Amino acid sequence: VDTLANQETPVVLVDLGVLERNIADMAQGCRLDGVRLRPHAKTHKCVEIARLQLMAGAAGLSVAKLDEAEVFAAAGCQDLFVAFPVVGADKGERLLRLSDRARIAVGVDSVAGAETLATIFERANRKLDVLLKVDVGFRRAGVLPEDALAVAQGIARLSGLRLRGVFTFAGHVYSATSPAEIEAIGRAEGETLVTVADRLRRAGFAIDEVSVGSTPTAAVARAIPGVTETRPGNYVFHDASQVNLGVCAIESCALTVLATVVSVPSPERAVLDAGSKSLSKDPLAPSGGGFGWLLGRSSRIAALSEEHAVVRVEPGESLRVGERVRILPNHCCVVVNLTDRLLGTRGNRVECSWPVVARGSR
Amino acid sequence: VDTLANQETPVVLVDLGVLERNIADMAQGCRLDGVRLRPHAKTHKCVEIARLQLMAGAAGLSVAKLDEAEVFAAAGCQDLFVAFPVVGADKGERLLRLSDRARIAVGVDSVAGAETLATIFERANRKLDVLLKVDVGFRRAGVLPEDALAVAQGIARLSGLRLRGVFTFAGHVYSATSPAEIEAIGRAEGETLVTVADRLRRAGFAIDEVSVGSTPTAAVARAIPGVTETRPGNYVFHDASQVNLGVCAIESCALTVLATVVSVPSPERAVLDAGSKSLSKDPLAPSGGGFGWLLGRSSRIAALSEEHAVVRVEPGESLRVGERVRILPNHCCVVVNLTDRLLGTRGNRVECSWPVVARGSR
Repeated sequence: VDTLANQETPVVLVDLGVLERNIADMAQGCRLDGVRLRPHAKTHKCVEIARLQLMAGAAGLSVAKLDEAEVFAAAGCQDLFVAFPVVGADKGERLLRLSDRARIAVGVDSVAGAETLATIFERANRKLDVLLKVDVGFRRAGVLPEDALAVAQGIARLSGLRLRGVFTFAGHVYSATSPAEIEAIGRAEGETLVTVADRLRRAGFAIDEVSVGSTPTAAVARAIPGVTETRPGNYVFHDASQVNLGVCAIESCALTVLATVVSVPSPERAVLDAGSKSLSKDPLAPSGGGFGWLLGRSSRIAALSEEHAVVRVEPGESLRVGERVRILPNHCCVVVNLTDRLLGTRGNRVECSWPVVARGSR
Repeated sequence: VDTLANQETPVVLVDLGVLERNIADMAQGCRLDGVRLRPHAKTHKCVEIARLQLMAGAAGLSVAKLDEAEVFAAAGCQDLFVAFPVVGADKGERLLRLSDRARIAVGVDSVAGAETLATIFERANRKLDVLLKVDVGFRRAGVLPEDALAVAQGIARLSGLRLRGVFTFAGHVYSATSPAEIEAIGRAEGETLVTVADRLRRAGFAIDEVSVGSTPTAAVARAIPGVTETRPGNYVFHDASQVNLGVCAIESCALTVLATVVSVPSPERAVLDAGSKSLSKDPLAPSGGGFGWLLGRSSRIAALSEEHAVVRVEPGESLRVGERVRILPNHCCVVVNLTDRLLGTRGNRVECSWPVVARGSR
């Protein structure tokens, strides 16, 4: 039997029991609310986890990159949404090929960007389904609600495209400092998007997808009448940021990094063999500092170099050279992107090794 | 002819002319100062670049992980130093196998850690060369100068090891706010390490390697009499942090990330298709904020999500959807670790595609 003790560090572990429960809980919540679940696969980049999500009733997958779309299509997923404003003729050609083997839709947020795809599909006498990205407050990509109609009308003039919905991502929720604020952001996310969808419908658009995103806002936003779909990603694993935001308990975190204490230069400082090339320097949301928590201890990672984590050892705790610790990272999605495989565990038993596909993707 | 225009984004580019000049300049500086150069290969993780360094006169390579050591040994490099306090029987076994095909040395900074390796080599009736890591002020791993002798004596009692040198890394130089401070740190780095080496020699140790590190301090620290070796890594590419620290000019930066503008929601905000999964959230050293500079513009990346970079567009500059930009990242070493290949360019011509090996390594 393969056990944790046999694994070299650093290595990324996925607690399969927690993973399965997270997948089941989100699927059930969406089913009860009558909303399609299209999980964002950029979190896991893992065919085996996508299969568990689809088996539990997900309608399809969201992805961020065409590499991801191609990998999941090749693995048999026939319904994919690229939740990113894809731009460029080279990407358009890939979308055209993809559309031969899967139902594919992509995000757009400008006529200029949409044109670069439309030309390819028009020439092939085909139509590409697109969803208009709406900015509900994150101020990243997306059109403002008041500009949505004008951009939609511009897109409608491009004969290679078919505008079939709207979508958003309320990423500003990761700065929320209370459950009430998270709820308010989730409510505004759903309501604003539904309002935009209704406005487009009144102008004659056949909007049949109103798709919200994000793990923290998932339960609130999907319950807004008129929302048809939700695209959370992080929920399969959760991480220290979700716990810190109050979104879940630490027991709902499936992904940890197993590391070894390699140096204890002083009682209050210990060094682990997992650095920013394993954990990333993504900060703890919404605030709090540090680069990861040690499971079962109050000591936390205070600094990261590429291959070293420096733990500030709390009074009353101690770490010794050679000892192994499990790190709950700040942000699970970027940790997965730093490793080639995920080890699935039950207790101390290692049950499977799942390859991470489409890392470093385009 | 393959050109930049044919490349899908995001993609990591290496300007081969700048790379070659960086490699030649560092090699020449070390030769003139009579110090061995053992470049840290964690920066590039690339066999082709290691070959250029060795061809220019490097004595061997430094690495951070055994995966890296194995890859470079397999590629023919016969002199490797693992500049990390390697701990554990599993790693000891790998070192034993490695020592069959290369001259291998490894860092230690505690008797407890050294013991886990010594046992393996003792049982095989072999000796593993180790260098004692000394902390000259970074406060990460390493023994304090005043503790070096006691730890060295503890290591000397382990019959599977042979202590043949001391090494350090003055990582605190990345917080230095002036050229004078960088110089002072580099001088102290070399002088402190030479003092420790002399102390160990007086106690009877045969210390023949006194090895300093870091690109910013390289020229100063290697010039201190008694220093035998230097292990800079970053210098092959340089990055925005090196420019910001005053270590080099922007023209000496070889590595950039080519990205596409995918959204311009407002005149002062543009979104690129390279996020933290391409650039990392490593900060700009020593300070200054942001997540990367756009070559030829004063606009910078103000925020990063996993697949999006948000550029704050400076007054008088503009970006349009579909346009391509070249990003000078904050920290080149972690960018390499996020991609599968480096495209070598001369002007707009793509001359080669080099695989990045030993990503996500142990």
